[in-house]
Order: sequence, then C-alpha cells, then structure tokens
Amino acid sequence: MSRKLDGIHFMMPTPFDDQRQIDEDCIPRLVELAVDAGCAGIVCLGVMGEHTRLTDGERQQIIRRVAQEAAGRISVTVGASAQGTYMAVQHALEAQELGVTAVMVAPPTMAKPNLDAVFAYYKAINDAVAISIVVQDFPEVNGVFMPAPFIGRLKEELEQVHYLKLEDPPTPPKVTAVSNVTGDTLGIFGGLGGVFLLEELLRGACGTMTGFAYPEVLVEVHRYVSAGQEEQARAHFYRYLPLIRYESQQGIGLSLRKEILKRRGALNTANLRHPGAEVDEATRQELYRTLDSVEFS
Amino acid sequence: MSRKLDGIHFMMPTPFDDQRQIDEDCIPRLVELAVDAGCAGIVCLGVMGEHTRLTDGERQQIIRRVAQEAAGRISVTVGASAQGTYMAVQHALEAQELGVTAVMVAPPTMAKPNLDAVFAYYKAINDAVAISIVVQDFPEVNGVFMPAPFIGRLKEELEQVHYLKLEDPPTPPKVTAVSNVTGDTLGIFGGLGGVFLLEELLRGACGTMTGFAYPEVLVEVHRYVSAGQEEQARAHFYRYLPLIRYESQQGIGLSLRKEILKRRGALNTANLRHPGAEVDEATRQELYRTLDSVEFS
Amino acid sequence: MSRKLDGIHFMMPTPFDDQRQIDEDCIPRLVELAVDAGCAGIVCLGVMGEHTRLTDGERQQIIRRVAQEAAGRISVTVGASAQGTYMAVQHALEAQELGVTAVMVAPPTMAKPNLDAVFAYYKAINDAVAISIVVQDFPEVNGVFMPAPFIGRLKEELEQVHYLKLEDPPTPPKVTAVSNVTGDTLGIFGGLGGVFLLEELLRGACGTMTGFAYPEVLVEVHRYVSAGQEEQARAHFYRYLPLIRYESQQGIGLSLRKEILKRRGALNTANLRHPGAEVDEATRQELYRTLDSVEFS
Amino acid sequence: MSRKLDGIHFMMPTPFDDQRQIDEDCIPRLVELAVDAGCAGIVCLGVMGEHTRLTDGERQQIIRRVAQEAAGRISVTVGASAQGTYMAVQHALEAQELGVTAVMVAPPTMAKPNLDAVFAYYKAINDAVAISIVVQDFPEVNGVFMPAPFIGRLKEELEQVHYLKLEDPPTPPKVTAVSNVTGDTLGIFGGLGGVFLLEELLRGACGTMTGFAYPEVLVEVHRYVSAGQEEQARAHFYRYLPLIRYESQQGIGLSLRKEILKRRGALNTANLRHPGAEVDEATRQELYRTLDSVEFS
Repeated sequence: MSRKLDGIHFMMPTPFDDQRQIDEDCIPRLVELAVDAGCAGIVCLGVMGEHTRLTDGERQQIIRRVAQEAAGRISVTVGASAQGTYMAVQHALEAQELGVTAVMVAPPTMAKPNLDAVFAYYKAINDAVAISIVVQDFPEVNGVFMPAPFIGRLKEELEQVHYLKLEDPPTPPKVTAVSNVTGDTLGIFGGLGGVFLLEELLRGACGTMTGFAYPEVLVEVHRYVSAGQEEQARAHFYRYLPLIRYESQQGIGLSLRKEILKRRGALNTANLRHPGAEVDEATRQELYRTLDSVEFS
Repeated sequence: MSRKLDGIHFMMPTPFDDQRQIDEDCIPRLVELAVDAGCAGIVCLGVMGEHTRLTDGERQQIIRRVAQEAAGRISVTVGASAQGTYMAVQHALEAQELGVTAVMVAPPTMAKPNLDAVFAYYKAINDAVAISIVVQDFPEVNGVFMPAPFIGRLKEELEQVHYLKLEDPPTPPKVTAVSNVTGDTLGIFGGLGGVFLLEELLRGACGTMTGFAYPEVLVEVHRYVSAGQEEQARAHFYRYLPLIRYESQQGIGLSLRKEILKRRGALNTANLRHPGAEVDEATRQELYRTLDSVEFS
Repeated sequence: MSRKLDGIHFMMPTPFDDQRQIDEDCIPRLVELAVDAGCAGIVCLGVMGEHTRLTDGERQQIIRRVAQEAAGRISVTVGASAQGTYMAVQHALEAQELGVTAVMVAPPTMAKPNLDAVFAYYKAINDAVAISIVVQDFPEVNGVFMPAPFIGRLKEELEQVHYLKLEDPPTPPKVTAVSNVTGDTLGIFGGLGGVFLLEELLRGACGTMTGFAYPEVLVEVHRYVSAGQEEQARAHFYRYLPLIRYESQQGIGLSLRKEILKRRGALNTANLRHPGAEVDEATRQELYRTLDSVEFS
Repeated sequence: MSRKLDGIHFMMPTPFDDQRQIDEDCIPRLVELAVDAGCAGIVCLGVMGEHTRLTDGERQQIIRRVAQEAAGRISVTVGASAQGTYMAVQHALEAQELGVTAVMVAPPTMAKPNLDAVFAYYKAINDAVAISIVVQDFPEVNGVFMPAPFIGRLKEELEQVHYLKLEDPPTPPKVTAVSNVTGDTLGIFGGLGGVFLLEELLRGACGTMTGFAYPEVLVEVHRYVSAGQEEQARAHFYRYLPLIRYESQQGIGLSLRKEILKRRGALNTANLRHPGAEVDEATRQELYRTLDSVEFS
C-alpha cells in the first residue's frame, strides 16, 4: 500500500534572526532544501521547531509561509501538540485552514498518565479535522507510554489517524509490534534523529520525520530499501552514520542542526530561543571535523 | 516592613461556560468575591487558571477584564510563566501594558534543570518590566529546585523581584531559610492550598496566594497573626482545616474549588478544559458534607 | 465480610541509635505502642522503615524481632518491595519463613512503566508464598499507575492478593472505583499519613496503614465508623486533624514521627540514615506547639 | 599524567543460568575476554551488572570471584552505589576488603535533588575507604545533575576521588568543562555505550567504562588516540560504529550485549532477571545481521 506521506520528511527548525525574532526569509530556503533533497514532505512546529517558544501569531506566520512555499510540491505537516485538548484542536483547525496536508500530535503531559484521556484527546482532534493525523509517540517528552494495542485502537476508531511517528525506543521492535496490530493500514515513521533508520525501514516503516540536516542521505537510504537493495541501503546509511549519530546528541541536537543549516546557506543564524542550549566553539569545530570526515564541507 | 501585596490573594480559576469557552460574565463575580473576602489581591492565569489550556487571545481577554473589574480596589497579579524566556517576557509585557500590579513567574521545565539558565530567564523578565515580579517556587510542576541562596541572589540582583510564592514542601522551614537570606526585603507567600498557612505566617510569610474557595477564612487567619493573636489565628485555622485539607486534594483540587464557586454563585459551571479531572457525583456529595461540617452551606 | 487484617496498622519506623545502627531494644516498645493503641497490626520495612537503606542482614534482624514481640497479639506485615522480581520473591519468602502474617509489595521503578511486567512481578510473588499479599499502589514512589481494572485483575487471578494499600491520590474516589471492581473481596487500606482516613473509611476502606505516631486516634475513628457513628468519627478525626496534617509533611514526615515517638518513649533517638531529612530546632518547636494544641504533650 | 586506571574498562554483566541464578562459571570467561581484549580493567555490579536485582550475598560472591580471576592482571572496579549513604559505605568497604582496585559510585535518587547531600554521601565513602573512588555522573538513572564546578569540589576536597565516569549527555563538551576545572588531576571516563568515545578521547578523556561486547575495538581506538594517530582512531571507530550504535539501544542494550557474549562463548545464557527486557527473535536476527555487516560473526 502506498500512502500520500510515505518517504522522508524534513523537520524544519524555526529560523531566528539576530534578535531571535522569526526570520521569515529563510523559510523559502528551508523548503527548497527539502524539495531538492527529494523529501516527501516538510514538518514545521515540532520539537525541532521550538513550538513551545512561539506565540500564536508566530505559529500562524510560519505555517502560512511554509504552505505557500511548498506550493503543493511537497506535503506540509504541522505540529499541533498542546497541553490540553482545546488548544490541540485549535492548532489543528488553524493548520487545516491554512491548507496543510497533515497535523502531527503528541499527547499532553499529564500528572497521571491515563490512556483514556489520551484517547479522548485524539478523538476530539479527529472529530474536528478532515486532514490526516500523525500520532506522535514520544514518551521522553511527555511521559505517556502508548502500547501497540492502544495505537491500534487509535487507528481503528479514529478515521483521520493515518500515521504514527514512532519515537519510543527501542524503535525497531516497536515498528514490528505496531505493524502486527495494524497491518499496513497505518504508515509508521521513525524519528529520533534517524539513528535507527535502516532498521526501522527494514522492519516496515514507511519513512522518517527527522531534523537531520542532510535529508538527501536519508532519502537515498529510503530509495534503496524501497527498491529492495538492502546492501546498498546499509552501505549508504553506514557511510553517513558518524554524522547522523553526532547530530543526534541529546540536548544540543537542534543547535548542531542549525549550525549545519547555516553553513548550507539555509539559515542566517544558528540562534535558538532561550533556554535552548547552543554549542560552543570547540563543539562547532568538532562538528566541522565530523562533516569533513564524511566529506560534507 | 509593609509591602504593597502583603495579605491574602485569591487564585482565580478561569471560568468556562457549557461549551468550555471563556465565560467572561463570571469575572466580575469572582473579583467581587475576592474584594468582599478582604483579599489584598487576585491572581489570574496561574495553574488554577489552567493557563496552559488558553490561547494568547483568551489570556488577553481575561487579564483585561480582571484589571477592569479590580479597578484599583485590589491588586492584580498575572501568571506569566512559559516554556521559554521569550514567551515569559511577552506575557509579562502584555500584563504590564494592561495595567496589572505584578506578574508571577515559575521557571520553565528543562531537560536538564540548570540554575544559570533559570537566572537568565528571570533576568530577561526583570529587564523588560517595571512592575513587581513574584518568583514562583513550584518544583512539583517544573522540576526546578531553587535553594534559598539562589532565591536570595534573584532578590539581590534583580530589582523587580519583590516577592516569592513558595510551593516547595515542606514550606514552613523554607520560609525561615529564605528569610534568613533575604531579611524582610522579600515578601514570601505560601501556596499549596493553604494547608500550612498558619505555620507559614508564624514563620514570617507575608500572606498566601491560593485558590481556596473561601478566602475570607484565610484573610481572618492572616489578620489574627498580623495582630499578634496567635491563639485566635490557630483556632480559626483549625476550625476550617477539614475543608482546606479536602479542597487541596491532588489532581482534583481545582475541580472541587470550581464546584464550591458555582455553589457560591461566582461561576455558572464547574467545567474544566480537558484533560483536567472533574469530580463525580459521589465526590460532589462528599464535598457538600465537608462544607456542612464546617457550617458552610 | 471481615478480613483478618481489617483495622489500623502502625507503619513502624526502623529505630537507629546514636551511630545510626539498628537499635533493636526499641522494637518491643514500638510493638507495645501499636498493641496498646488497639492496632490490628504493625507493618515494618516500608518506606517509613527506610527499607532501601538497610542491609539484607538488618532486614532479617528486624523482621525476626518484630514477629517475636508481636507474638500473635497483632498481625505483622513486612514490606517486600524490590527493584526486581527475584529480590521481591526472596524478601517475601524470608518474611514468610520468619512467621509473619502478610507481605506488602509495591511495583518496581521501571524505565518504561508496563502493566504486563507489573502483573508478572506480582504473579511470581503470589506463586512463591502462601501468606497474604498487600498490593501497594504508590505511584509517587515508583511511577507506576495502576488503574482500578488492573487491580481487579490482580485480585481475580492471584489467590494471595487479599489487600490493597491505596496511596494514589485522590484516594477517596479510588476506594470507590476499586470497590466497584472487586466488591468486598479485596480489603482496601488507606495510607498517605491518614489525611483522608475519614473519607476513605466512609467509602468502604477496611482500615489504614500509616506511620502517624498516635495510632490510637485512627483506631478510634475506625471504631466509630465501624459502629456506624459517622458524626462521632468525624468529630474525633477533625479534632486531631491539625496534627495528622502536620505530621504528613512531604520530605520530613518520617522525621517528625520519629521525634514524637522519641517523646513518647518508644525510640531512643529520632535519627534517620542519610540522606533522610531531619528536622531542625525551629521545626521541632513547631511540632511541639502543634502537639500542645491538640492536647498531646 | 598517567593514572592507574587509564584505558578501556569492560562493564561486566552478571551471568545468570537457566534458573536465573548466578552462573559463576562464566566469570573466568568474562574476565579472560577483558584481559584478552587489552582492557585496563573490568567493572562489576554496575547498571549493566543488574546490581539492584542481587542479594547482598550474591554481590559478595561476584566480587570475590572477579577479584580472584583478575589476579592483578587487570584492575577491578566495583559498583557501590546505593539508595543511602550507609549502604554505599558498606558496599565500598566490602569491595575494599575483597581486594579490588576502586569503587564506582553514583548519587542516590532523592525526592529533592540536593548537592549538599550528594557531597556528604561522597564524603562518607571517601572517609571510609583507602581505594580510588570513581564518581559516576549518570543523571538519567538518578535525576541528580552535577555541574562541573561541583565535580571539581569533589575532586578538591575528597582525596580518594580520582576518577569520573561521565554519562551526562552531551558528554564531549562536559569532558572539556570538567577538565577546565580539574586539569588532569581527575581521570575522566566516558560511558553510555561508547557512542561518543572518539570525541570524548579527543577532548581529553582517559578511557571509557562501557559494556560494549567487543571491548577490543575500543581498546584499539584508545591506543590510536594515545599515540596521536587521530585519523586511524577515527577510521577504526567509524568502522565499528554501526554495531556500537546498535548495541547501545535504550531499554535493550544489556540484553543485546548478553546475546553477543553468549555467541562469543563467555556466557551460557543471555538471561536477565525480571523485569529486565529481553530481545525477541526478530531483534536477535537483526543483531546478527549487524554483526555480519561489521564482519564479526
């Protein structure tokens, strides 16, 4: 079965200028980078997009511009997660009105993780929108563990739930566990920086959504796997693994990616909004040596 | 030393109607309840105000109306906490522009709690506003533990930091620990439902900020302590302690308070936004029996 | 239905001497205090017993002496929780061999809370012992949330699971929720310092297991409720509530109880093992004033 | 400066037999594997050794046998972490009496992380033993974040603190931050599966302590870096990175390593004690393909 979003999605960081205001001029360049890389789509306002550090007005500005630049050439998925159901529905409705392809939604943080409340949250979003929902399974961020049968129930009962973004490690066995419940009716994306992309794809994932700053590498791996060329996929993945690993570092992954995207000309600054951790000069040099070592420079 | 905010502050819940939209008509009634109770102020958009479940537009609507109704009769403090420094500054500036007395700010949740980043967060807010800042010390909600010397540093270096809302249990010894560092240059409020109000006041706290739905009880306890009448304070506090305790229940405290405020005519519904936990009929009856037992009915 | 353990259980703290070694001579006095108070039982090696700070040899010494002193006059329940199933089984077997009445077991902390693993943990203990198991539902300590139907499944499938110690707030509605699933086949105890004892009993709890240092107060409340005298129960409970509340303070509850038990002559020192938090002189005086105020001195 | 423990240390898993009892016969084989690989030492009773799932008697059995088999050929470091200071001191003293080289100690989990209590914990251990202490900085496991200056204070004030095992990501910048405080008076080890070994060593780490099941690979990388041959180090590290990455998977890392060690003949079974997660057949085959791909088979 082939689904609309199958493939590699670039998790777009939110570009900031020197005053850490939205640097909208970079958005066309970020979209072009994703298009040129062969991505199936671009995802904005996820964790990589620092979504919790943006005003409602800034959210709208970003979605509008990304949708305009994508112009139907690649899909646009918008992070709509919120700390409550009402806000998640509002985010999803706003994204839909701005013409995007899908929304990606993680459960809220709850004092007492409770799958019935999580189901009601997704149901409310499902009942409000007519576009695809990507369920984001990311317990490290929200403390909610969703077992495979629960994900199956979301798929079964909620007609807009078409995809899962799986970030509950170890991801390869969970790709299998969820597939065993849903068959191929649910498209499963990896995440977590792509560090287990090869295994996820070989287990049946339909792609990944990640912020790795050279998405063309992941596109190529996906292409090989789709063509049944496992050994070429493995060789290509392993060749770039040192960088994939380096970029995925906990706490500074986003900052490293912004450094690369600045070097690639897609961003004007590598700035994050505080208290996002930025990298120091020694780390920047270490990153450059890592880039050199895989012949990106 | 007497500070502007000394006394009891009523943490205002956000009123919702049957569709769980803002029920603005209740705001005048909530403000009158606080005024009639003898409160020194009202606090909106805190945890009790479900601040994470509101749009930016709804925030503004609430602040504006509360400030208008308070009309200088009681102080207005606005919760300005956010997951990042930029948003906290925006919230604080907006509150200031709408004419409120103070902002109350808790640290953001951080993957790696880090007091230097917390200091920078408060410094940015301090440098942006000219109104008082109430530092909210609430580790249960954000995972940030602020030792007394760090709170002293905030007071010492940031000129707008005039108050602390202390919700790091056990609170009585921390009132003493912080006072030992700051003298009486920092006004210390209790919180946590008022369950330790008596001990906090006797340790030198200048009041409390809490959502207990009969703030007149707390006002009376504060009045006795201020007048040096410890035994009367204790007797009054103990008399209502069964209810203070009952209302403070973890997970359903806000819901119980909304039930009471509805009964008192200050709210039209006891609704919360999902996934806020609401109480069932058995619990509602249990609450009523508790009210009866302290002769509130 | 009347069960063997119905009633009030005193959670015994582990007595330490000046060198913070086990002060075994206090054990007879602690047991007598529980017997004299009219308790149905005594519980050792729970959180109040600092069980994670004891060697295997010290565990055995304590269980042996408590069982010997109880001498069949009151039941003896032993905390057997562990970070893994093997150790929990070992603890339970050891307790059984030493002749105790029951074991109390909380789930292990898990990187990924998982009810199937929790079930297997309880099943292993159930299959190993012939004495009663008290399931301890204490998510604050281990991060495991057990919904009422899961507790029902434990009762249904594991023949030694006879009791629940419920410490998942708010406890009153959960007493009802669990009872609705299990009927009165499962005895439900409260905990959490007894702060909601009245409501728990009126909802159908069969008693409580808590470290409150005047268990005779709780025994009296239980007696009134058992006799259908709700108003007397309420009056008695409210009279001592200021102290019940004070003792239950997060972080220093155990230390406060040891201070009282020392004053009552049941302990030689109020020492905890490091890093257990001890109280300072101001807090000790505050405790004494609270005792005076309820006419305990 | 050259320190006694500089180099690669093999984190030994605890071997279990079919009944999940200690399989002591495997210990000589595990020690030989470390010796043959060129390791500087072996570390037992760490997280990889399932230390929280062992009785005090089993701990002693393991330490005794490891020390006997090492026979002075490689250093022996013993995990002595505990939930309280008394137990950590007991573990450290026991290890010292059994003739080991060093103890490795992480802070206890605390309701309220508190660096003064952490210092007192290390001071008590320091004052009790005459062997080296390896401070384990592992916030993911215990929630305690230790800033570089605090680690410097431990080194400065506690004469037995000679090493740090650094597992607070991102580790490369923290190697630099700690080195800037301590110079080379403190030996810094990496951990976390060796995924950032190259960067850690180039930043000045003196080795690593990890459970990667082919320690000879890490030994070779360390040898190249020590000889100033960065490019050879990088090439060797990158060659095996696919496996290093695969083995380090969150939640199943230990299980994967036990599978490999069984294949290498050092273990009789890959069993963990419950609730340790074991791998399924699909994952086992995936592991084998990964081994093949780096030509280990």
